[in-house]
Amino acid sequence: MKEPYPKILTGAYPLGPYPMEKLRQVNEPTTAIVGPIERFDEREHGFNRAARGDYGSRAQHRSSRGYPVSGAVASNYAGLAAMGERAHAAIEETMPPYPLPEDPGILTRHVKSLGYFMGADVVGTCRIPRYTIYSHDSAGNPVENDHPNAVTIVVDQGYATMDASSGDDWISSAQSHRAYTTSAFIAFAVAAYIRKLGYAARVHYSEDYQLVLPPLLLLAGVGEIARNGIVLNPFLGLRFKAAVVSTDMPLEADKPVDFGLQDFCRKCKKCAVECPVQAISYDDEMSVYNGYQRYPFSAERCTRFRLTNPHGSFCGRCIKVCPWNKPAGWTHDLVRWMIQHAPVLNGFFVRTDDLFGYDKANRDRQWWFDPSE
Amino acid sequence: MKEPYPKILTGAYPLGPYPMEKLRQVNEPTTAIVGPIERFDEREHGFNRAARGDYGSRAQHRSSRGYPVSGAVASNYAGLAAMGERAHAAIEETMPPYPLPEDPGILTRHVKSLGYFMGADVVGTCRIPRYTIYSHDSAGNPVENDHPNAVTIVVDQGYATMDASSGDDWISSAQSHRAYTTSAFIAFAVAAYIRKLGYAARVHYSEDYQLVLPPLLLLAGVGEIARNGIVLNPFLGLRFKAAVVSTDMPLEADKPVDFGLQDFCRKCKKCAVECPVQAISYDDEMSVYNGYQRYPFSAERCTRFRLTNPHGSFCGRCIKVCPWNKPAGWTHDLVRWMIQHAPVLNGFFVRTDDLFGYDKANRDRQWWFDPSE
Repeated sequence: MKEPYPKILTGAYPLGPYPMEKLRQVNEPTTAIVGPIERFDEREHGFNRAARGDYGSRAQHRSSRGYPVSGAVASNYAGLAAMGERAHAAIEETMPPYPLPEDPGILTRHVKSLGYFMGADVVGTCRIPRYTIYSHDSAGNPVENDHPNAVTIVVDQGYATMDASSGDDWISSAQSHRAYTTSAFIAFAVAAYIRKLGYAARVHYSEDYQLVLPPLLLLAGVGEIARNGIVLNPFLGLRFKAAVVSTDMPLEADKPVDFGLQDFCRKCKKCAVECPVQAISYDDEMSVYNGYQRYPFSAERCTRFRLTNPHGSFCGRCIKVCPWNKPAGWTHDLVRWMIQHAPVLNGFFVRTDDLFGYDKANRDRQWWFDPSE
Repeated sequence: MKEPYPKILTGAYPLGPYPMEKLRQVNEPTTAIVGPIERFDEREHGFNRAARGDYGSRAQHRSSRGYPVSGAVASNYAGLAAMGERAHAAIEETMPPYPLPEDPGILTRHVKSLGYFMGADVVGTCRIPRYTIYSHDSAGNPVENDHPNAVTIVVDQGYATMDASSGDDWISSAQSHRAYTTSAFIAFAVAAYIRKLGYAARVHYSEDYQLVLPPLLLLAGVGEIARNGIVLNPFLGLRFKAAVVSTDMPLEADKPVDFGLQDFCRKCKKCAVECPVQAISYDDEMSVYNGYQRYPFSAERCTRFRLTNPHGSFCGRCIKVCPWNKPAGWTHDLVRWMIQHAPVLNGFFVRTDDLFGYDKANRDRQWWFDPSE
């Protein structure tokens, strides 16, 4: 392929299903990273602490995979592990049959397009700051990764099932595993492709991380940090999971985005109200945690409840009730636009959302079975 | 979950993204299965014959995976094989934590919903006739499968990339591998779920078949047989691949469908005109092949060209130019409706299609690179 490159590679069209390109781009995330940030030890993650017994016996021994739908979806991790074993081996067969473009922008849109072709909902890129590399993995081994660039692969958990769910019922963990396994499946194909072009690439997914993903999603412009401390995308809400490919391929970095979420989250507080264990703050202002500006959040309460939830398998109640959890469509696109451009209306939208019952489980559409207790 | 069951499980809503439920259902496929049908020996498949050298040295030694995009997508087969090894072992951990409904219709919509949740575009069910079981596998071992029921998992190859492609260029094999691997990924989760409920289940996908898939897709109402001998779905055209789960779980079988394709294909002949090696018949009437009514088709010409195509990796030109290869949307839904209800207009639609250039590659949207030759 010679210059001029096709329009799709020069940025003339949106690459994926959502108009990410139309969001306002900014030089710094809307939640400040003030630093200094200490590298995180994966052993201190909630699930690893629970596995050591820090949250009690029930949290230590209960697996999301005991619920059959969840266990079935999670069974595909076996195959992903096999992809990983092959992929993490030394660079295999590198066979560049075409001269790659020197322009990193062209190359970046090419690689992103492969992610979209494979079914990703949002694909972003960013540099990898050293503070996003875990200091130690869950087994206690020191972690190093010298790849400068990240490709973030985002997959929707699916609106139809979220519509039928309360967010903290039996399907919750299956929704997570579905999006985790699918994003990893896509990431392995993208990483294999990058290696075939002669560059190093490694997949970071829910069973095998070297990198802390949320700050990478923030830097890559996937979304802004919401009140509950995780990244919110304006088209998917909080209803997604991600995998990341780290690489030494020269890529153009995306910028963080600003679609007005900070004003919205300050007023809304719906996730804080609805959280079954009050793990999310009602504060009007953020504080600073390990160098990140964010609302206070109790990871312990959240993790403990997810592992012990007596009426469900895990929990994603904040994801469900978030007013940004909406189907694709023009009325909701209009509301998204107005939130971005007329923040004075934000309180009105939250109340309208309550009236329409978007926070309720639409049980007419529940396709899964509850265990008999 | 107790009766009454949620509306989604009683058939009140469409389960998936396309209104498959609205198609006219018929008792017998629109292309007659007159029999007797001899069971097929997998060694006689075009690709296996090519591998033995029947189609010459270039066809014997050239792999679709030499093109890097295709090889990267196909690298995920390694993970699917690992899922298969685990899955084909004796029935594991069966832990039915809820009483399953006795009504096979409820159970069928439940299992189909899992397929849709995982991302399938169409999920169907049918009985497994003995003639669809291969007599021998590609290694020459006799094949047996005593599962009465099949779940067909259909995945779109993707309109955006097909729009950019000629159908017989470099992205063709990657499109196939993308839909083959994704449908298998979904099928492994569905099969794992069925086993967790205490039934046997096996996945049949592009790397590991016991069953001949096209007649199962026909019986399950995924579509009708088109002029080029494969199943056409009215919403996806020929632009899909499938995997199948066979099981002894009691399931309700779907019926074959009739959306007017036979009259359309008799008049259209576009695939025959555009086939680069004239493998597709121009005949006005079908003949009978191994008990199936269909148009004559040269599998040898088709396979040989796909393996030796000098300007691409494989070929799906018939898939690309088929007038049923259209994006989702109301104008095209209208045309689909009119074809079904006013077959006298079929010739007009084919000519309109030519005028709008749907058979052309939209190179502005080509995101992949061609090898330098």
